[in-house]
Amino acid sequence: MGYMFLQNALQYPVEIFVLDPSENAPCAQHADYFVKGDFADYQTVVDFGEKLDAIGIEIEHVNEDALQYLKSIGIKVIPDPDTLAIIQDKSIQKRFYIDNEIPTAPYFELEDWRELKSQNRVYPLFQKANTGGYDGRGVQFLKSRDDLDKQLKASSIYETPADLEKEISVVVVSDGNGHIINYPAVELVFNTEYNQLDYLLMPSSLQAEVAAETERIARETVRKLNSAGVFAVEMFYNKDGSIWVNETACRVHNSGHSTIEAAQSSQFDQMLRVLMGLPLGSTALNSVSAMVNLIGAEGETGVAEIHNFDEILKIPGAYIHWYAKEETRPGRKMGHVTFLNQDIEQLIKDVDKVNRTVKIISKK
Amino acid sequence: MGYMFLQNALQYPVEIFVLDPSENAPCAQHADYFVKGDFADYQTVVDFGEKLDAIGIEIEHVNEDALQYLKSIGIKVIPDPDTLAIIQDKSIQKRFYIDNEIPTAPYFELEDWRELKSQNRVYPLFQKANTGGYDGRGVQFLKSRDDLDKQLKASSIYETPADLEKEISVVVVSDGNGHIINYPAVELVFNTEYNQLDYLLMPSSLQAEVAAETERIARETVRKLNSAGVFAVEMFYNKDGSIWVNETACRVHNSGHSTIEAAQSSQFDQMLRVLMGLPLGSTALNSVSAMVNLIGAEGETGVAEIHNFDEILKIPGAYIHWYAKEETRPGRKMGHVTFLNQDIEQLIKDVDKVNRTVKIISKK
Repeated sequence: MGYMFLQNALQYPVEIFVLDPSENAPCAQHADYFVKGDFADYQTVVDFGEKLDAIGIEIEHVNEDALQYLKSIGIKVIPDPDTLAIIQDKSIQKRFYIDNEIPTAPYFELEDWRELKSQNRVYPLFQKANTGGYDGRGVQFLKSRDDLDKQLKASSIYETPADLEKEISVVVVSDGNGHIINYPAVELVFNTEYNQLDYLLMPSSLQAEVAAETERIARETVRKLNSAGVFAVEMFYNKDGSIWVNETACRVHNSGHSTIEAAQSSQFDQMLRVLMGLPLGSTALNSVSAMVNLIGAEGETGVAEIHNFDEILKIPGAYIHWYAKEETRPGRKMGHVTFLNQDIEQLIKDVDKVNRTVKIISKK
Repeated sequence: MGYMFLQNALQYPVEIFVLDPSENAPCAQHADYFVKGDFADYQTVVDFGEKLDAIGIEIEHVNEDALQYLKSIGIKVIPDPDTLAIIQDKSIQKRFYIDNEIPTAPYFELEDWRELKSQNRVYPLFQKANTGGYDGRGVQFLKSRDDLDKQLKASSIYETPADLEKEISVVVVSDGNGHIINYPAVELVFNTEYNQLDYLLMPSSLQAEVAAETERIARETVRKLNSAGVFAVEMFYNKDGSIWVNETACRVHNSGHSTIEAAQSSQFDQMLRVLMGLPLGSTALNSVSAMVNLIGAEGETGVAEIHNFDEILKIPGAYIHWYAKEETRPGRKMGHVTFLNQDIEQLIKDVDKVNRTVKIISKK
C-alpha cells in the first residue's frame, strides 16, 4: 500500500518519510527517508513523527497513544487517533455502528471466550477477535457447537452470518472540513468453486438504487467516524435486500486499487491530498474496471518470482502492479492487475486469464 | 524524464539502475541502484552497463562508442547506437532525411562557420550546430547578413525557416521486431504575444488527413532509423500544406508527457516494455488532453519552490508532475500539468489558469 502511495506521491512537491519494521519493505528503497522501526512501539512512532508535517497510516496496528501525542502537539494525523481507536477494536467498532444506527449483523460479545460453551446460542457464528485481526486472520467460523474447540482464545465478538447476495465495498474520502465523497460501490466477486475472492468489479452490478444506498450508508459511516482520511466501508448486501456494514478500514484499501487507473484521482492520490491539505480529487470513473489480486501460490515460500505476465500485457487496458515484496508466501498479496473495459464479459475473460496463467512462485 | 520513467517502472517486476552526473538527480533517491558518473565518458558507461540486461537513454549525449561496445557484448541497447549516431549529429541526421526521401527544410552545411560570410545565401536562416544542442541551445536565428557575427562558432547546418501553420510532434514506438505504432499527433501551441510554447494539445487540431500524413511520415522516419525504442518526430506543417521533419528524438520526449494520463499506455511505459521485451502497450487515447510545462520563473535561481498549485488541483482531470529537481533556473523545465477534458475551450482556460497563477521561484 505504502508503495503505491509513494509511486503517486513522487509527482508532487512533497517529501515522504516511511516507518516500517523491515528494511526490505518495498517502500524503503524508494522513499525520500526511511526509518526502520516498529510502528506498534510508542517511542518509535513519536520519534518518527514529531518532526513531520503530517502523518498517515497504511495499516491499523499503529500505536494509538503515540498518534494521540503527535496530534496533541499539532501534527496532522490521518485518520484521527480517536477514529483509529474505534476501528482497532472490533468490539468498540461494533458498538459504534449500533450507537449510530448504522445497520450491521446481529452480534453478542464475550470478554471471556470460555463462556460460549455454557451459553445457548444460535449457530452458525462468526467469531472475530477484538484486536489483532488482519487479512482474514482473527476470524473463525463456528458452524455448530461441535466447533467450540476451534474458538480463537481471545475476547471476541460473535456475529450472525449474512445471507449474502453480494459483498460490497465503498471507498470514501473525507477532507475533514465536511467534504465527504465516495467512489462507486465495488463488488467483490467470489469463485464459488473455491470460495476465494476472484476479482473486484467497479462499479458493481447492483441495481442503481441499491448501489446508491450502500454509498449513502458508507458516507454516513465516515461522517459519524468524524475524521479526515480515506476509508473503505465493507458491506454485505443480503438476499432479503438488507445491507449490513461488516467493517470499516480507516486507510487505503485493497478494494480501492482499481481507482489508480479507473478513476480521475486514485485513493492513494486522495490520501496524499488530505495529508497535504490540497483539495480532494475527482472520484469520477473513466471506465468500468476489474481488479484481480496476484497471490502467492500454494507451497511456494521464498524470494518471489512472477511467471507468465507477458501475455496479460498484450490486453489493451491491462495494468500490472507488482508490489516488490521480496518474499512470497502462499496466499500473500504480491501484486494486482487492473483491467479497464466497458465490456464486462471481456473483463471477466481477462480476469480468468490472469487466474489461469499468472503464477507467483519462489526462486529455485 | 528518468524520474517519470522510474515512477511507472515501480509497478513492474524489474530493477532500475540509474547513471547521472549529479547525486542530487531526482532519480538518485528513488532508483533501485544509483551510480554517479558522466554518461559522456566511455569507461563510465561501459562499467555501468556491462552487468545489466538492457540499457536505455533519456538524453542523446551519451557516449556512443560505449553503447556500441555494450551492444557488441550482447546487451540490449535502446535505441540502437547506430541510430543514436545519426541523431547525435545534425549534419548526419539531415543527410539521413534527404537520403531516405523524408521531407525536411532546404539546407546547406558548413564545416567552417567562417565561410558563411563569403557566401551568397538567402536569409533568414536557422543555424544549428551539428553537435551539443539541447532544449533550444545550439540554435541561432540569422535574420540577415547583419547577424553574421551572432553565428555559433561551430560546424553547422543552415536551414530555410518554415512558413509555419502549426508545429507538430508525433511520438512513435518501435519494438524492433517490425511493430511500429504511434500516438496521435501532438500540436505545439505558441503564445503569439511572447512567442513561447504555451501548451501541447493531443490530438492536434489538424484536419484528419493532415494529421494522418504527419503520423505516416513519423512512422516512416522511425522505420528507416531501424531501431527499437521511443521516438518523437518533430515536424513543421507549413502554410502551403507541406510537411517538413524538423528533427527526431530517439528517446521519451516532452511532447509525449500527456500520454501518462491521456493514453492507455504512456511513452514511459512503452520504453520500459521495449527494454523488458514485453508486448507494446496500447496508444489509444482516453481523452483529449492539454499539457503545459512548469518553467522556472525569470530572475529566480536556487532551491526550487512551487506556488499556487492548489487551485489547479481543484480542476477535475488535472494532474501535476513535479520533477523534484533541486534547483530552479529561469526557463528550466521543473514539472508539467496535464488536463484531460473533451472540451477544448475548457482545456485552454485551464492552461491559461496555470500560466497566470503557478509560479516556480527560488526559496528565500
